[in-house]
This record gives sequence, structure tokens and C-alpha cells, in this order.
Amino acid sequence: MRARDLAVDFPTVTLDTPALEAARLLAERDLPGLILVDPDGRPLSILPGTQVLRLAVPAYCQDDPALARVVDEAHADLFLRRLGGRTVRECLPEQPKELPVTDMKATVLELAALMARTRSPLVAVTDAGRLVGAVTLQSLLDHVLEM
Amino acid sequence: MRARDLAVDFPTVTLDTPALEAARLLAERDLPGLILVDPDGRPLSILPGTQVLRLAVPAYCQDDPALARVVDEAHADLFLRRLGGRTVRECLPEQPKELPVTDMKATVLELAALMARTRSPLVAVTDAGRLVGAVTLQSLLDHVLEM
Repeated sequence: MRARDLAVDFPTVTLDTPALEAARLLAERDLPGLILVDPDGRPLSILPGTQVLRLAVPAYCQDDPALARVVDEAHADLFLRRLGGRTVRECLPEQPKELPVTDMKATVLELAALMARTRSPLVAVTDAGRLVGAVTLQSLLDHVLEM
Repeated sequence: MRARDLAVDFPTVTLDTPALEAARLLAERDLPGLILVDPDGRPLSILPGTQVLRLAVPAYCQDDPALARVVDEAHADLFLRRLGGRTVRECLPEQPKELPVTDMKATVLELAALMARTRSPLVAVTDAGRLVGAVTLQSLLDHVLEM
């Protein structure tokens, strides 16, 4: 069993995808993250769901729990307003030292080691550099636990 | 809307929970992680799903993709064998500087800031230090996007 057998189609975004669209994609399809691709379909990064949220939090609240505590209620509005007009470009995490990206020949063990090392529940699978699908922690666990 | 309104029951594990049981819980219930509690029900840590996987990867493969690549097939067996007899105690991540734990009065904005800052899609909610439930990235997004 190799990555090519486990990989499934997975939603992608580009640097110009609206942040609100990315948030809706995560929520509607219950995804652990999104794959960011360039115009040629090459994975540029993996965008964890938590980093899309970051955009919705005003800068003055991000590192100060006390400030975030006093701003209460009506926040569906606040979130939508803050995400509106912004793009995925603005929620990119700092580039990690290793991206959870591998090729179609990766073994199950290699996928597991990559997820553990990068702490990413989502691995992008490429063929000649282009994205062909993804393996999630859930699908890997389902496979190894034979569920 | 505060954490007490959004928090739902969430599975917990203890240091002595078998690693295989933790893996099955993650897979069966499609969870982003598990909450580790002490015998008094106080959250000790949040265990990301990827760190349970780490236990299943032999040490000699963890940091060497080339070695993980050559060990192929029959790995449902390997995983189950390696997880067998081990406990959650052995898959604990290094203690992060901040745990995704808050109290029932946390605002939506505070929950979002905490998830973004700790990069955890799962926040434990406590009352007087004891776990009362959890808020996931999914439920927070569903709420703020009014889905």
C-alpha cells in the first residue's frame, strides 16, 4: 500500500482565494486544512484551519487573552467583516522547515512518519511535482486500524 | 456567546489509556485530538492525533524518510503490534508553552485567538479547573459562519 492507493481528491486554494471562501470550505467539508497550490498545481504549502482563524482575530487581541475576553458577542459579524476582502495570502503560516508533501510511492510508514514529524494531519501527494491528491490522518488511521 | 455555550462533551484519555484505544477513538469519532485529564478530571494536555501516530513509527524511521520508504506493506500489522502494550504516556508531545485550555467565560474571539496561537483545533473548557467540555475549530467555524 502506497500513497497513490490512499490519496483522494482534496480541495485546493491559491494565494488569491478569499479567506472567507477558505473558511467556508474548511467548515462545510470538515477538513483538517487546505492545500495551497500555485497556478501549475504544485503544492506551495499546507494551510492549517487554525491559521485561517488567525485572520479573523484583530491584531490587538491575538497575543492578549485579556483583550479578547472583553470583546464579546455579535462576533459572527466581526468574523465575517474581518475575513471579507482578505485572501489566503494573508493567512499563510511561517514557512515550516519541512512541508507535509510526498510522492505517490510513499509507504504507509513514510506517510505516518511525515505526519508525526510535521505535526500535520494532512499530507499532499504529488506526481512529478503536481498535486494528485491528499492523505489525511483519518484515512491513514482507518487504513492501519483496518476500520 | 461564550465557551460555556459552545462546549460539548468530548472524549478524554488518561496517561494509562492504551495507545491503541486512543488511536481507535481518534479514527472512529473523527476527532482532531484527544484531551488528556488527570484522575480529578483536570486537563493535563491536548494530544494531537499526529502524535499518537508517532508511537507507531519505529524510532529508526522517524527522522529518516529513506528508511521509512523501504519498509513497505503489511503495515496494518506493524502498526497494531507497535501500538500494542503502549500507553498515552508515551505519545505525549513536548509540553508546549501554552495549552489550549480556557474557562467557561471565554468569548468567541478569545477561543479563536487561542486556537490560532496554540495551533490547536481543539480547546478544552474548564470550570474551577475541571474539564466540562471542548470547542473544536469545526464548531467554532460553524458558529461564526452561521452554518
